[in-house]
Amino acid sequence: MHHIVESQQFTLAFLNQIYRLADEMQLDPRPYFMPNKIMATVFFEPSTRTRLSFESAMHRLGGNVISTEKAAEFSSHSKGESLEDSIRVLSGYADVIALRHFEIGSAKRAAKVSQVPVINAGDGAGQHPTQSLLDLYTIQANFGKIDGLTIALVGDLLYGRTVRSLCYLLGRFYQVKLLFVSPSICRMGQDIKDFLTGHNLPWEEVEDFNAALRAADCVYMTRIQKERFLDMDLYNNALNQYRIDKTKTPLLKEQAIVMHPLPRLDEINKEVDSDPRMKYFQQAANGVWVRMALITSLLHPQLQKETPLEQKF
Amino acid sequence: MHHIVESQQFTLAFLNQIYRLADEMQLDPRPYFMPNKIMATVFFEPSTRTRLSFESAMHRLGGNVISTEKAAEFSSHSKGESLEDSIRVLSGYADVIALRHFEIGSAKRAAKVSQVPVINAGDGAGQHPTQSLLDLYTIQANFGKIDGLTIALVGDLLYGRTVRSLCYLLGRFYQVKLLFVSPSICRMGQDIKDFLTGHNLPWEEVEDFNAALRAADCVYMTRIQKERFLDMDLYNNALNQYRIDKTKTPLLKEQAIVMHPLPRLDEINKEVDSDPRMKYFQQAANGVWVRMALITSLLHPQLQKETPLEQKF
Amino acid sequence: MHHIVESQQFTLAFLNQIYRLADEMQLDPRPYFMPNKIMATVFFEPSTRTRLSFESAMHRLGGNVISTEKAAEFSSHSKGESLEDSIRVLSGYADVIALRHFEIGSAKRAAKVSQVPVINAGDGAGQHPTQSLLDLYTIQANFGKIDGLTIALVGDLLYGRTVRSLCYLLGRFYQVKLLFVSPSICRMGQDIKDFLTGHNLPWEEVEDFNAALRAADCVYMTRIQKERFLDMDLYNNALNQYRIDKTKTPLLKEQAIVMHPLPRLDEINKEVDSDPRMKYFQQAANGVWVRMALITSLLHPQLQKETPLEQKF
Repeated sequence: MHHIVESQQFTLAFLNQIYRLADEMQLDPRPYFMPNKIMATVFFEPSTRTRLSFESAMHRLGGNVISTEKAAEFSSHSKGESLEDSIRVLSGYADVIALRHFEIGSAKRAAKVSQVPVINAGDGAGQHPTQSLLDLYTIQANFGKIDGLTIALVGDLLYGRTVRSLCYLLGRFYQVKLLFVSPSICRMGQDIKDFLTGHNLPWEEVEDFNAALRAADCVYMTRIQKERFLDMDLYNNALNQYRIDKTKTPLLKEQAIVMHPLPRLDEINKEVDSDPRMKYFQQAANGVWVRMALITSLLHPQLQKETPLEQKF
Repeated sequence: MHHIVESQQFTLAFLNQIYRLADEMQLDPRPYFMPNKIMATVFFEPSTRTRLSFESAMHRLGGNVISTEKAAEFSSHSKGESLEDSIRVLSGYADVIALRHFEIGSAKRAAKVSQVPVINAGDGAGQHPTQSLLDLYTIQANFGKIDGLTIALVGDLLYGRTVRSLCYLLGRFYQVKLLFVSPSICRMGQDIKDFLTGHNLPWEEVEDFNAALRAADCVYMTRIQKERFLDMDLYNNALNQYRIDKTKTPLLKEQAIVMHPLPRLDEINKEVDSDPRMKYFQQAANGVWVRMALITSLLHPQLQKETPLEQKF
Repeated sequence: MHHIVESQQFTLAFLNQIYRLADEMQLDPRPYFMPNKIMATVFFEPSTRTRLSFESAMHRLGGNVISTEKAAEFSSHSKGESLEDSIRVLSGYADVIALRHFEIGSAKRAAKVSQVPVINAGDGAGQHPTQSLLDLYTIQANFGKIDGLTIALVGDLLYGRTVRSLCYLLGRFYQVKLLFVSPSICRMGQDIKDFLTGHNLPWEEVEDFNAALRAADCVYMTRIQKERFLDMDLYNNALNQYRIDKTKTPLLKEQAIVMHPLPRLDEINKEVDSDPRMKYFQQAANGVWVRMALITSLLHPQLQKETPLEQKF
């Protein structure tokens, strides 16, 4: 039995399997139907979009769903049950658990006691590995490859969980060049920079947003969070500086793609939504195919044996 | 692709198709099964009864459901996503969306960007077109026709969304006579009176509730809302005046029917529930058959092409 | 049509049918599949664990679920609908209702008006009959019998709904001996003692927890609730006195089992979880099989006719 806890687990062989399966799912998921399987979406904090994406994936596989966004009541003051006990019980009700929790490391703790596979659907400031899988799949599906691409990560790189996880995944590939574009107060952390250097991936901090837009095959935009800033002038400057609108799209390569984990605020003006290089809604839709592939790789009797995941915990 | 946004869309041909389908659904829905389809019930405000009716309909069609009553979190202060963005993403997860929102016009906005059919499940003080469909179906199923009937609308006619929508639908028919029975502070609006007159439907404001009960084929009761009244004596008078109890049922025609959109408070005393002319629980149950018919007319490959809906937006 | 309202309804013949069915369900539920049936889980107060157990059971039977934990909004101040009206409407949407409500007697009231079978999923301080069914099934599945066993009930016996319901069920059996082990302020009520005596079942209040552990075939632990105690020293004494940890397991019979309705706090130390006699997680998992058996016995055309339930209401 395998669990999905963190992006570092995904071997290249596993990533390839997932992307091959995700492609198949779009054509015809019927060979992988699991009509008698149940997924429990166990959310200790609400994240409706992520939950519905998982549930849609399970239904598209012909499976069933039991669901709660109030799992926190299990460990409430009056009931006071440990996460481990909750998972032990819930894993008696389902065949796979998608777990969202507000604490770093909770997915790992759940995986240790669960009788069924656990998929980390976000553990606080920790990981959100299915998001990074769908991000990578969106790049792969557009370019047919990851190796050799130049990828600009823009916005809040210090706290942004998605860009950090994506960097971990990119460590599996070759000659990928990273451009970091961010306000000075939320630059990419040294740990990720060291990780990339250790994996022979070149990275560069780029001051000039326009230069990054010209150079990148893929521009990954993220939201700059107001609450990080003490000085509102600095915040407004950052917003204005790192925004894609009609003045920016002419700078983009013809084959470039622009991604965003959503929700977006003003960092991408809706006036550019119809530009075919804007892939954020496609990216969100890909989440369903990727999660179908992931669930299949964990539950399908054949694939379950093959799944070449690193179990780092 | 069609969307269900407002009652005015429904052509007579469409209404007939829906009612034929709703009849079929009660006998055997299997020819219309859609086991691989997903409905998303996206509720920006809770309305458990409406949500469960839609979800029951989808399951009775063999389909699947993903569901949220907390869609408002999408546009919460911290996330601040536009309705349009939420719908674009969610329409990547499902094959049809039942949308409940607190703002007039939201269903129309959603329909403009959705990749899948949107059904308006109530947009604030605006429309609730599936309610008016099931109301009309209840009349049709009881009398085998709408043309020529006398229909008394009783209670809060000024603010009552259901009676207003029903009037729009009745505009499609012939020789229907409307009786309006209400406290003076919540009389039917002039816009609806003008609409009916413009469609050659006679209407009359009736002071004497008993006279209306004697004349009507169908009595459509609604709740009088306390918060409309400044003077509690007036409110209690209104309550006492427009109430159906055992003293009133002898006045009703033998073939009459009494409807109510529910929930009811005191405006229909439960002592008359066993009178076979009381159809409000049947009316609620009809909601499932009508919604099954509606979903089918939007998603079934054959019917989808034929659906003769007016797209007014 | 039968309803499940209280543990006293269950005849020995019915219990045997449920346990035979629960055994079958674990091997292969397919002969009992009900792909076109819908269960409504109607919860007037949240109880996520119970709700998910019911929903898992329905899905394992191939059925569908519509669900709300906000049923209390039906009777909220502004809507003010009676429980009876809510149930009448909801029973038009589903084939069976699992009802959780905060008032004693609500399940009985619902059963009186519902058009479909109602299963009591807990009515306030009243009954929770499916919990007692799964408790009894866990004992039966472990010992192959109930007759002749010695069962120690430990903890809060005065307010504990589960231990009270279990006693009612045990009244159907022979030569079962009950040991009551509790702080003096939460001893088993006289009504249950009288019931047991009236059914020729011996019971004994035991001061010495160790003696009870040595004598019992089955030790049923429950949580002692802090809020019952005015004196915190008494509370801490009780906690320390009635706790199973590594110092206690050597006292247990080799074939004994330890049960707990969960959630547990400190009354069973997790250090003993790996002892094979600890059956509380198995007990929770059994809930799904028992609920599958129960739903089947209510809805399966064949079994529905046979179900030998006493209808006491």
